[in-house]
Amino acid sequence: MHSYNLYLPTRLVFGEGAIEKLPELTKGFGKKVLIVMGGGSVKRNGILDRAKELLKDRKVFELSGVEPNPRITTIRKGVEICKKEGIEWLLPIGAGSVIDSAKAIAAGAFYEGDAWDLVLDSSKIKKALPIFVVLTNAATGSEYDAGGVISNLETDEKLPIMSPLLFPVASIMDPAYTCTVPPKHTAAGAADIFSHTIEQYIVMDGNILTDAMCEGMLKTVIECTPRVLKNPNDLDARGQLMMASSFGCCGLLSIGRSPSPWPCHGIEHEISAWHDITHGEGLAVITPHWMRWSLTEKTAPRLAQYGVRVFGLDPKAPAMENAEKAIEKTSEFFRSIGIPATLSELGVTDEHFEAMADHVISHWHPLSAAFRPIDREGILAILRASL
Amino acid sequence: MHSYNLYLPTRLVFGEGAIEKLPELTKGFGKKVLIVMGGGSVKRNGILDRAKELLKDRKVFELSGVEPNPRITTIRKGVEICKKEGIEWLLPIGAGSVIDSAKAIAAGAFYEGDAWDLVLDSSKIKKALPIFVVLTNAATGSEYDAGGVISNLETDEKLPIMSPLLFPVASIMDPAYTCTVPPKHTAAGAADIFSHTIEQYIVMDGNILTDAMCEGMLKTVIECTPRVLKNPNDLDARGQLMMASSFGCCGLLSIGRSPSPWPCHGIEHEISAWHDITHGEGLAVITPHWMRWSLTEKTAPRLAQYGVRVFGLDPKAPAMENAEKAIEKTSEFFRSIGIPATLSELGVTDEHFEAMADHVISHWHPLSAAFRPIDREGILAILRASL
Repeated sequence: MHSYNLYLPTRLVFGEGAIEKLPELTKGFGKKVLIVMGGGSVKRNGILDRAKELLKDRKVFELSGVEPNPRITTIRKGVEICKKEGIEWLLPIGAGSVIDSAKAIAAGAFYEGDAWDLVLDSSKIKKALPIFVVLTNAATGSEYDAGGVISNLETDEKLPIMSPLLFPVASIMDPAYTCTVPPKHTAAGAADIFSHTIEQYIVMDGNILTDAMCEGMLKTVIECTPRVLKNPNDLDARGQLMMASSFGCCGLLSIGRSPSPWPCHGIEHEISAWHDITHGEGLAVITPHWMRWSLTEKTAPRLAQYGVRVFGLDPKAPAMENAEKAIEKTSEFFRSIGIPATLSELGVTDEHFEAMADHVISHWHPLSAAFRPIDREGILAILRASL
Repeated sequence: MHSYNLYLPTRLVFGEGAIEKLPELTKGFGKKVLIVMGGGSVKRNGILDRAKELLKDRKVFELSGVEPNPRITTIRKGVEICKKEGIEWLLPIGAGSVIDSAKAIAAGAFYEGDAWDLVLDSSKIKKALPIFVVLTNAATGSEYDAGGVISNLETDEKLPIMSPLLFPVASIMDPAYTCTVPPKHTAAGAADIFSHTIEQYIVMDGNILTDAMCEGMLKTVIECTPRVLKNPNDLDARGQLMMASSFGCCGLLSIGRSPSPWPCHGIEHEISAWHDITHGEGLAVITPHWMRWSLTEKTAPRLAQYGVRVFGLDPKAPAMENAEKAIEKTSEFFRSIGIPATLSELGVTDEHFEAMADHVISHWHPLSAAFRPIDREGILAILRASL
């Protein structure tokens, strides 16, 4: 068993009508709140209005227009509002990008320099505004972790910001709020949950409990995603995906296991930094190619376990055969939920592959710690196979 | 999906040598600490000395002699020390009973009346001392929850104390510290983890993720307990059991599921209140009889699922057949780890069964909410079958 340090101080409040708990949860956190949101769907579907109604005794400010890959330029706007108006807490209403932005704003509000400094070096975060989340898509798990990912289009960088000070105080999770998410983003969100899990599951050493947790996460995605694509109002399946979302990125799935450098995330962040594609779609394309590249005699048994336990393959078949089938099943699943199978279909060319590989090497966790250790050539091989 | 509210603010610090983090974890929590412990094993095996060495710049007080079913008389002694000496934080070093005691003492330190009041009505807990745990057995999960169980021999009561203020700040979990636990208590602890899980797993509505978590918990106990009984120094198996311990009672396993009134715990607490038996052994005796009493055409499918996924029964066999086999496998497992199969073997007679049933009805969660609803006659039937 590997050592671990598990810390999950966020309160998860899940259920239909959970937003009604907002006044009680935020009591004592101050009068001035900044609501952070994306392109406007929360205005159209009534969630923003309900939140404002519930906060009618507070002074509410708004920052809308957070991008799907949230940009430092938007963070700077939020930080400016916080400093100018003396904002006391933040209320992101949205999915991962909106929550990630709120985290960077929360830290930036107490930092004298430019907020991008905090992305380049999160140890500079010494204080942050409290964050309460209203979640509207099952995807990144940002509602239950201490990190976010911010893009800088000037430098073509997409990098994590992370500090225990950035855990939300509470996250409100109403599965009904995800029913209006369009199929493309429902599927991309599901692919994100899948990828978070697989990055922690496919490592050299596991243990019985977290293996089972990972397999439950993957089965949730595989069973519930087709259900919600067929019937967007299937609240049970929406709820199961939303629950899974929280556990993808919080560290629970990796306790006691070999540490993973999250290779697919390292590679995908480069792609979406250069091409601004949807994160979950990029991950879905990369993942089976990373698996195929990683498949050796030594790594086959775990990929085979994945195939047997998640896809029901025959446990008596040879490990290599099951591993290969499991990879094919992974591709098939992503295709079945409508995600393009190649980077080309997402509009990505091989033009920046060399720069991407260099940037993974210089800015991501060392991929030498991956399931099969990955060097620069390995990154390029995975990118080319995904094209 | 059922609503949930998940809150787990305790930090888990797991691994060999984890105690070395004690000074860093407790920095800023004050100079005066009360170490709470049981019968003296932590003195013999060097854990107490190491803790005191690491806290040599603090003023350390000691309370030893906490009973396996911790008594309110001992809690009162601890509260007195806290009030008299101005204790600032507590360090239970031990298993569930020691941690439970520390929780009651932590709350009692800020309460003017008798600490038993706080057991009878936990809403009276308004403040509590911070608690840091050094865990020495895998069993109750008290290291990662907000509750404890306290006995009052004057009134023959054994009742829970519970408040979000009682979550430990951090729990230090070194699997090596469990290697000296005798086989009887290793097995009883494993049975406790098993029971915590089964109480939440065997309910009417589950979901894919927490079903998988519960099954992973049960498989951990079933695979790892025989390993540690055969080789007490099997650190991997000790570690897996210790990890499972934390998740048994914290609420994670029951999110989104039908709520359970924990019937076996309700009944067992009565038995150990009257007879002072080992909690985990009482649970192991009761559990299969509760299952058998609960088995109907309606409840068979979930018990069958348990049999198929945990014990590998044939998924094509009829549900009733698999349910019956699953119950038999449960009994067999407990016998195989050396736990007596009947209450008689534990020295329990039927003398107080009527009083026990009455007390469950008046003091426990309503057992009408159980998998198969249990009335007074049901409690008596389960007790008699267990004799």
